[in-house]
Amino acid sequence: MKFKKDLYKLDSDNNFYKASEIVNEYKKANPNSNVISLGIGDVYFPISKYVAKEMNAAIKKQTTPDFIGYGNYFGIQELRKAIRDNEYKDFDIEEIYVSDGTKSDCGNILELLENDALIGIPSITYPIYKNTCFSLGRKFEIIKSDDNFIPLIPKKHFDCIILCSPNNPTGINYSKEVLKKWIDYAKKEDCLIIYDNVYFSFINDGVKSIYEIDGAKEVAIELRSFSKHVSFTGIRCSYFVIPNQLHKDINIYWRLRTVNRFNGASYIAQVGALASFNDKVKKEIDKNIKYYKDNASILKTSFIDLGYEVFGGNDAPYLWVKCKDGYNSFDMAMYFLNTYEIVIVPGSIFGKDGDNYFRISALGRREDILKAIERIRKHESKAN
Amino acid sequence: MKFKKDLYKLDSDNNFYKASEIVNEYKKANPNSNVISLGIGDVYFPISKYVAKEMNAAIKKQTTPDFIGYGNYFGIQELRKAIRDNEYKDFDIEEIYVSDGTKSDCGNILELLENDALIGIPSITYPIYKNTCFSLGRKFEIIKSDDNFIPLIPKKHFDCIILCSPNNPTGINYSKEVLKKWIDYAKKEDCLIIYDNVYFSFINDGVKSIYEIDGAKEVAIELRSFSKHVSFTGIRCSYFVIPNQLHKDINIYWRLRTVNRFNGASYIAQVGALASFNDKVKKEIDKNIKYYKDNASILKTSFIDLGYEVFGGNDAPYLWVKCKDGYNSFDMAMYFLNTYEIVIVPGSIFGKDGDNYFRISALGRREDILKAIERIRKHESKAN
Repeated sequence: MKFKKDLYKLDSDNNFYKASEIVNEYKKANPNSNVISLGIGDVYFPISKYVAKEMNAAIKKQTTPDFIGYGNYFGIQELRKAIRDNEYKDFDIEEIYVSDGTKSDCGNILELLENDALIGIPSITYPIYKNTCFSLGRKFEIIKSDDNFIPLIPKKHFDCIILCSPNNPTGINYSKEVLKKWIDYAKKEDCLIIYDNVYFSFINDGVKSIYEIDGAKEVAIELRSFSKHVSFTGIRCSYFVIPNQLHKDINIYWRLRTVNRFNGASYIAQVGALASFNDKVKKEIDKNIKYYKDNASILKTSFIDLGYEVFGGNDAPYLWVKCKDGYNSFDMAMYFLNTYEIVIVPGSIFGKDGDNYFRISALGRREDILKAIERIRKHESKAN
Repeated sequence: MKFKKDLYKLDSDNNFYKASEIVNEYKKANPNSNVISLGIGDVYFPISKYVAKEMNAAIKKQTTPDFIGYGNYFGIQELRKAIRDNEYKDFDIEEIYVSDGTKSDCGNILELLENDALIGIPSITYPIYKNTCFSLGRKFEIIKSDDNFIPLIPKKHFDCIILCSPNNPTGINYSKEVLKKWIDYAKKEDCLIIYDNVYFSFINDGVKSIYEIDGAKEVAIELRSFSKHVSFTGIRCSYFVIPNQLHKDINIYWRLRTVNRFNGASYIAQVGALASFNDKVKKEIDKNIKYYKDNASILKTSFIDLGYEVFGGNDAPYLWVKCKDGYNSFDMAMYFLNTYEIVIVPGSIFGKDGDNYFRISALGRREDILKAIERIRKHESKAN
């Protein structure tokens, strides 16, 4: 059969799943181990009790004749309005779409473009973009980054660029100046920017949304999610903005596409997402975000103190750390696992240029983070 | 920008959404109207109280430190096992995937195939297949059907065929003989069959799953959903089977693909789906299905009685009715709306060859169906 010949050939030995399998094997081989994960981006805090209460009410409604079935292809109207009112005041509700996750969205958005569109993907970034292009049979090329992990404006034409800011894995939030250059490039080259902004709630003082920059509405689609700040990693709800200014028919197109391709995010998840805009929940979220940020700050200080070179961690829950002693990133991860029983994410997962780095996450429990640091410290002092 | 030039050009004036807009316009123009829908496939019965209870418990769990986050890319293991044990005893759990809806699945599955794979779509079928191919830039051709709306085995090569049985819109369940011919064709041509089997719970005595036919495991992927029988149209949960026999690496491929493209169906929805396999719930479901089937039987008898030629309705919740007096299907739908205030679905939505037919659904409330029939009867007797 005409199955893809090279499906994931390139990445089958180097991805999150593979990395997590290595950890599982270690645990199996060492049943008395006490592994601490500074690895994948799952969150520590569970969902808010108020959000849960509203979801329970939504379920109750689904047991009555007034239950909600098909029809909310673009999201329930109240949720789209709440997103607009809280985060996108300059936009119409009709420019905002609710979906089931940014991982799906970053591939789905490509359905706006012709199949031979050339997509640019920064050299160190969330690996899903590249693998999504593989899976969809899309043409893509890697864009080099500078020494600060900022993707360099290409000298050639791209039809689409996928930017992630605050960046996964580097934890760096792109500045106004950087984004202005990208928007200028996009305008000049008639290039669509897909702006993955899922870590927006961790940003301190920098650019919170690409639409803060002049001209962005004419070139950019911004993606956000409820996964991190509302703890919806298992509940699944995301959203994105397609500005009318991109093209006169763009939202007519997208509505038609969506009606034909997607029956909407789960109604229960959407009601929960809506509840996250309640004032009391917003305060809880702020508290949780502060906790994660304090984690990041502790991790940053400690790893610097341990002699590591550390990037990010100010505007994102991720820190990007340079490997020591000439280790490559997979060997470094094995070293952390075997020596400290600590899980880190090898940088090579995020691109070849990430092979001298590893990612650690601040989304975990404080006690675990402190314990992890203590383990490394103890071992290092013994070694010296 | 390199936006698709022809996105939905062909179908922008002829789809479910457009049809529902016409109805909404009518209601607006006639605020005192009392429109009865025999239209889209939303279900009458709400979700089971037991399913709701289990979903509430799942939400409670999400408020605790033991909450479920990322990781169930292929579905929670208990649910995959329940599906296997109840419906796919001949398969491994690892051949079963849980997802968020068959509408998404029928497009996603195409990611197994090379981009230039030629896809065959029957001339009268669920329009989503065609529009999905459009949206994904996939090559497809229409396959003619015989006088009984059974797609004819093509004389040329296809890489993939999408079959829907029990069929939407015709309500016909393909026989063993028909399916055997398709499986033989698929084997001879090295062609993948995507078998949309979402109405399986409505089948009386015929083939319930394509895997009942010898050789099907070597050529077919079967799609099912919790939408209709568990009333999950708004809650979103579906599943499908990728047999190991299709290709030695097929499930390795698909796991890699899925980890990179999808973070799983909502955990809450999955717990609800799992609860639907409880014995008490199964009995409730049987009762609901019987109700819908009785609806179908009443509709069939009544429309025949009213002089219509009627197909389907035995193994599916849909009836496929020939338009009267040379009406085309959109005009017939307008006639039903303006004369009886009844919504039907014009057959042209399901393909050009459907233009002399319309679809009616048996998934609604008994009282509405009886009232609808009464309205037509009264008007016809007045007219005569």
